[in-house]
Order: sequence, then C-alpha cells, then structure tokens
Amino acid sequence: MSAPDPRVTALWEPFLSDRDRAHLARSPGPTLTGLGARPALLLVDNYRMVFGDDRRPLLEGLADNPLYVGSEAWPAVEAQRVLLGVARELGVPVVHTTGDPNMPGFDWTRRHAGQRAAPAQWRRDPDDFRFVDALAPREGEFVVAKAAPSAFFGTSVPALLQMLGVDSVIVCGESTSGCVRATAVDAASHRLRVTVPADCVYDRHEAAHAIALFDLAAKYADVVPSADVVAALRKLP
Amino acid sequence: MSAPDPRVTALWEPFLSDRDRAHLARSPGPTLTGLGARPALLLVDNYRMVFGDDRRPLLEGLADNPLYVGSEAWPAVEAQRVLLGVARELGVPVVHTTGDPNMPGFDWTRRHAGQRAAPAQWRRDPDDFRFVDALAPREGEFVVAKAAPSAFFGTSVPALLQMLGVDSVIVCGESTSGCVRATAVDAASHRLRVTVPADCVYDRHEAAHAIALFDLAAKYADVVPSADVVAALRKLP
Amino acid sequence: MSAPDPRVTALWEPFLSDRDRAHLARSPGPTLTGLGARPALLLVDNYRMVFGDDRRPLLEGLADNPLYVGSEAWPAVEAQRVLLGVARELGVPVVHTTGDPNMPGFDWTRRHAGQRAAPAQWRRDPDDFRFVDALAPREGEFVVAKAAPSAFFGTSVPALLQMLGVDSVIVCGESTSGCVRATAVDAASHRLRVTVPADCVYDRHEAAHAIALFDLAAKYADVVPSADVVAALRKLP
Amino acid sequence: MSAPDPRVTALWEPFLSDRDRAHLARSPGPTLTGLGARPALLLVDNYRMVFGDDRRPLLEGLADNPLYVGSEAWPAVEAQRVLLGVARELGVPVVHTTGDPNMPGFDWTRRHAGQRAAPAQWRRDPDDFRFVDALAPREGEFVVAKAAPSAFFGTSVPALLQMLGVDSVIVCGESTSGCVRATAVDAASHRLRVTVPADCVYDRHEAAHAIALFDLAAKYADVVPSADVVAALRKLP
Repeated sequence: MSAPDPRVTALWEPFLSDRDRAHLARSPGPTLTGLGARPALLLVDNYRMVFGDDRRPLLEGLADNPLYVGSEAWPAVEAQRVLLGVARELGVPVVHTTGDPNMPGFDWTRRHAGQRAAPAQWRRDPDDFRFVDALAPREGEFVVAKAAPSAFFGTSVPALLQMLGVDSVIVCGESTSGCVRATAVDAASHRLRVTVPADCVYDRHEAAHAIALFDLAAKYADVVPSADVVAALRKLP
Repeated sequence: MSAPDPRVTALWEPFLSDRDRAHLARSPGPTLTGLGARPALLLVDNYRMVFGDDRRPLLEGLADNPLYVGSEAWPAVEAQRVLLGVARELGVPVVHTTGDPNMPGFDWTRRHAGQRAAPAQWRRDPDDFRFVDALAPREGEFVVAKAAPSAFFGTSVPALLQMLGVDSVIVCGESTSGCVRATAVDAASHRLRVTVPADCVYDRHEAAHAIALFDLAAKYADVVPSADVVAALRKLP
Repeated sequence: MSAPDPRVTALWEPFLSDRDRAHLARSPGPTLTGLGARPALLLVDNYRMVFGDDRRPLLEGLADNPLYVGSEAWPAVEAQRVLLGVARELGVPVVHTTGDPNMPGFDWTRRHAGQRAAPAQWRRDPDDFRFVDALAPREGEFVVAKAAPSAFFGTSVPALLQMLGVDSVIVCGESTSGCVRATAVDAASHRLRVTVPADCVYDRHEAAHAIALFDLAAKYADVVPSADVVAALRKLP
Repeated sequence: MSAPDPRVTALWEPFLSDRDRAHLARSPGPTLTGLGARPALLLVDNYRMVFGDDRRPLLEGLADNPLYVGSEAWPAVEAQRVLLGVARELGVPVVHTTGDPNMPGFDWTRRHAGQRAAPAQWRRDPDDFRFVDALAPREGEFVVAKAAPSAFFGTSVPALLQMLGVDSVIVCGESTSGCVRATAVDAASHRLRVTVPADCVYDRHEAAHAIALFDLAAKYADVVPSADVVAALRKLP
C-alpha cells in the first residue's frame, strides 16, 4: 500500500479550498490498492462527436460544437494508444464503449421524461459514435453501445467481465467528470478494483476534471500515471 | 378481477399431475389484473435463426437446425402481426428484441465461463438475428439487442419504459419457456403489470410451453387470448 | 462433458409429450459443464412462511396456507443440510436469501401497480421470513433480503459474488419453478456456471417442479443429484 | 425552461478556472426542466455514523472520526426536515437510504477484492446506520439499506419507484460528491427527472461539494434552492 503519486495529487490541489487542504493534512488519506490479478481495459467514449479530427484549442472549437473537447483530448488519446498497445501485447481483455444512437440521449430525456417519444426527435447520427482512428477496436475486442454515463448501466459489461474472470478494471477516456467517473463508481460498486490513469482521461472543464480525479482517488479508485499502469501490467503473472 | 379464460387454462391442464389438479381445485387460483393505463408491446426474439422462411413441421426442420421451432411459430407470428397492427394504430410503444451477435451466447458461456474468450469462437452471424418479415420494426419503434434471456437484463429496456411512462407490458414471441418467460418474470420484478397473449408465444417443446404459461398465470402475468388484449387496448382512454 | 444423470432425467420424462420425446431423441441434448473453480452455495427462500414446522401432506396444509409446500420440502431441507455442512467444512461461501418484509410482495403489486402504496396494505410479518432451523445462517454467511423471485434482482448478490471471486453457483431451495429458477436464469445471464441439485429444490406443483428442472437442464444449468455436487466440491483444489 | 438560480451558481463559481468561466460564458448552459408530475423524495444516508449528535466544527470532529462531516450537516438536516414535512403533508412518497451493515463496505472491498471474505473483518455496527432523529422514517415510508454509493445499485429502489408510478426524484442527504451524486446519476440513467436542492446536501470537502453541484447542474439534474422545490411541490395537481 502506498500513497497517491505527487504528480497526480498536484492535479487537484490548486482546486481545493484552504479548509479542504487542512482537512487532508489531518486525514489518513487514500492508499493505492494495486491492480487485481486479472484486469480488463475499459476505453470509454473516445468517439468522434466530441472532437473528430479537430485539433483546435477548446474555446475555438466550442463555437461549432458545444460538446467539443478538442485539445484536451489528444494527449489522452496518445496515452491511451500506448496503454492499449500494451494490453493487446499481453492479452488483457479490452472493452470499448460508445453511445447508442438508437436510444434517446440524456438531453432529450431531461426535457421529455414522462412524455411518449416521438421518434424523429431523438434519433442520433451513428457516425457521431464512431471511434477515433488511433483507438479503433480490433477483432476480438468488445464494443458496447450504452445509453447512460456508466459503461455498466443497461449493458452487457457486468456479465462480460464476469465471463472473463476479471477482478479489476482500468478506466480511460472521456469525460473525466461524466462517463469515466460514473463507470469507475459502478465498477467499485460491483466490487471490482478500479484504476484510473490520470493522463488517459479528459474533460472540457478543468475544475470538473481535477475534482473528479480527487473524488475518485478519495473514494473509488487508484488514480495513477499511465506509466505506472503499464509497469504493473508487465509484472502480472 | 376475473379468473383466467378456460381456452387458456385448457392449454396446461393436460400436463398437470392428478395431485396438481387436486391442489388447484382447493386453491383460490390466479385472478386477472388487466392492462395498466400505459402499456408497451414487447416482441421478443422473432428472429430468423429459429425458423427463417422455413415452414416444415418441427421434427423435420430439426435435422438441419437444433433450434428449429418452425411450424409452432407461424400461427404465433400471425397473431403478433395483428396485435402489432393495433398497437401501431393506437400509438402504443413497441420494443423489438433480438440477440446481440457481438456477445458470446449462452452455450459458449456455459462451456467456457471463467476462461478468457478467444474471439473467433463466439462471434455469431448478424443475419441470424434479423427479424422475420411480418414483424419487422418500423421507424419510431425501439430495437434492443440482448445477450441474456430477459429483455430487461443488461439492456436499456428498463430505462426506456421508465422514460415512456409505461406501467405495463404485453410480452410476445419466443420461446415461451425461455426468453418470453424470463422477460415476464423481470417485468413483474420491476413492478410492471404483465400480460402474455397465449397465442402470441411459441416454443419447440410442448410441455415446456404449456407449463411456462401455467407458471406465468400462477405467479407473474395475465395469460389471455390475444383477442382479449386487442379489445382491452381499444378501450384504453 | 457428460449427459445428465438418468436419475435426474427420469424426473421430467413423465411430463413430456410424445412429440417432445421424439424431439429429444433426435437432438444432441444438454451436456454437463461441471462446477467452476470457485463456487458459492445459494440457499433460496427456505423460510418459515411456506411450511414452518408443519409436516402435513401438501393437500392437508393447503387449507390453512395457500403457499403451503409442506411434505415436498422436508427431504429437500435434509439434502440441503448435508450440502451446507460440506460447504461449511470446505470454506465455500454461503448466501441465504429470504423475502424483504419491508417491500410490497408480488401479489400486492400485481393488483396495485401504478397506484401509490398505502402502507398498511403491504407490510408483511418479518417472522414469516425467518429461516427453518436446520438451515439457519451462521456467523460469516451472507443473508440477503429480496423483493423479487431472483436472488440477483435488486440485491447485493452480484457484487457479493464478484467480491468473492466466485465463478459459479449451486442453487437450492424453493420454489423450483419460481425463485430457484429465476435465480438460476439470472446467474447464467451473469455468465456464472450454474448447478441445481435436483433433490435440494422443491415446489408445490409436481408438473411445475419437473418441467422447471427440464428447462434448467436444457438451457441454463447442470441439474444433478446432490451427491454428485458433494463429490465435486470435495475434488476442488 | 429557465436558467439555474444565481444563488446556486454562486456556490461553484469560485472553484472554476478562468478557462472554465470563459467556456461557460460562450456555452448555452443548462436549463431547468422542473419537477415531473409524480415526484418521490429520496433522503440519502442521513445516518449517525457521519455526525451523530456531534455539532463540533468539521476540523475538530475529524480527530475522532475520519468520516466526520459535522457542522456541514446541520443546516442541510434542517432544510431536509422542512422539505420532508411538506412531502408528508402532500403525500409525496418518501424513501430513506442507509448503509447495509451486513455487506462489506467500500474500504474493505478496495483492499480485499478478489480475496474470499473472512467475516469478522467486515461486519459493521448497525447502530452507525441509524438515522438522525430529525429525519427518522415514519410508518409508510420506505427504508432501503444499500451497499454502494447509489441508492439504485443493488436495491429495490428502481422497482419501488416503478411501482409507485414515479417519474422524478428529489435527492437530498450526504455526501454531495459521493452517494447523492451517484444516486442522481443513476436516477437520470433510469430516465427519471432529477432535482437536487442545493441546501439539502452536504459534504466534508468544500471543492468536492461545489463541483459536484456544478456537474449535476451541467449534466443530470435541476440544482435549485429547496424553497423552490417546496413551492413546486405545492403547485402539483
């Protein structure tokens, strides 16, 4: 058991209040649990809708796409590409999630819950949910379409992980404060060990990104540099 | 509240034991609860894999396809076609389920649970899971791919029904003793009212079909002729 | 892989139709998959409400209690007691389920779904849900109250089994065609291996008991004599 | 549809980065959806373990109890007491959640996942999970013990809300960044409308509290003053 890495805690410290810092200084603090014996890699929602091929800065792309996450994403895509390569090399099971274009999205639902759906209003463009090229699934990897933030909600993921004998998950992708976080909370609720590589997740809001990692580290997951995950995977028997 | 229709109870009576009949004669017996105020129609697994265009008798088709249900299916497809037409006319929400070819099936799982999946072993032909022509989904109807018998297990169906404000489901399709039954049990577990139109469900085994309807009527659902469901739908406000 | 034991298939054969028997004679038939490497024992609903201390024949007790299962239960309780003793000796995890008296039962729900609950109508007597003495839980065993047939529905059981690293379940208790069956179907849906010891499950209806075992063996579980389960547990590493 | 109340947005604005503020200034921003037609009140984990009768400031109580939330809680308990009184007056269904002392907690799990449980290690004191006096459940209200952050995970809550014909939930209690948030995310995933009264939720960390409300307002819920919820409840037909 060790404490979180200072490179990781440095991500959220600027966003805490003075009282929060005093609280942490007097608290035992989280400890890392390590990977389990049979991890799976979960890549959450690296789909084209949130940035596509666009590499503009966040505030520029926003004019065209309110969900644009752009420049925040590319380093995290690259870090995921490296981690995915190691998982493939070592035979670690890989699950890619994306949105289900055949289910009404959250925004639609929040405005219309309790009303009967008129279909044309909610159908979405399947092309939005294609994966970015660098993280495209390969034969033998699992692709799961979901209609809620968590990869575990209303999907085959729990059964899939049970079938594969998995005892832990490594959660990457976007957004840190949305689908990644909801997936990590559900994974911990399912009594799986959870690891979140801090440089493999991304979010359009800086405070939401930082505090999501703070919460995850405090309650649900090991939050670590992806280089540490790669090293731990290579040490698995 | 009324008792089940004699045309329906006649389906299972020949399969009961003498003691079962004595038991029923001394028991209060099930009563019908009626449709709820906002039903949805669930058409379960009317896919081509189990009969396709084949109309041969059950024991003949079996030589080519161990899952063949053939001649049992066609009258139930026709009864579903009529019921589906009424649902469409009245704006009752419709959900079609089929198998998810991207998840390992039950047979694979039972032999391999706990072993890591080698992908080529479990992928299935998406064409098997196309719907029979008479019951093909239309624009505005929901299509849900599932990887377990119940339409509620690991799918968006519970959220979908909540979103639509549904309080009850009419469950049709195949097989009576498999996916239809599991779906009806889960619907009742979700505290929805459940109706199973006896002539809209089918199964390759006669005893399994009959006793599934007996169990459903005893514990979980109104089991009624589909003509009664049509009449009840037409009376909804 | 072997075929089901003739002592087990003999339980359901009298209830099949001639066509069912012809169908089975031409079909490959189910094969046994064996226990997994880390099974758990699930004892479902051995609570006092269904027989208490009453040992009268089924049709006699029925006059006082429509749910009476009486004489059907006692041999299955004794077989479970033996199996439970072996599980305890070997350190196999044990989960006992019972009904949740704080949730409205199914009968209430079927009549009132969609209406707001008036509390006095549905509260149930907690004493009904106490376990029979021979199968009372011990310190260190898990007790789960449920409000639906399946032990997996709306409970901590899936997370518990994940936490314990379990890959398979042995399902016992009552009723064969109700909670036992629903639990076995959900366990298989969760991609766990499932074993049902035929002499450890019981039901008030003979046809429902027999055909539930037939369906379970055909689709979801190894249905075997409990002596075989004891032998398999003793061979686990 | 209206924008969130400035008294609410003021809670999180100090915790955002400059870029976050620029992003919000250029974004359409969340709109309020209002209560549904049939809301339920969910009071999450107002149990004695996190503060009991202790009214000391947060940093003082911390020495004795690392989960102490003390002075943060009391105003939120009072605001919940008022809201609960209105719900009771109007017949709005009420669900109280607490922890399940018979399931291993998260901390235990994170250290031991994949190992078989030795029972003495994880049993917890049921007295910790008693409700604070001001919010004690009354006859006719539902009490649900849970073993995960979300009130919907592994509990009867989804079925209960379905049974009651509920289309929306008002989520209160603690902690804002833990169980309240997880409950709100799951409620939205179930396609219920979600309202979080900002003064009825509490957390031991200021940044986590503020950013949880920011995320909830951005993605999942109406975040509003509880006085607005009271007014909306009184306007329900």
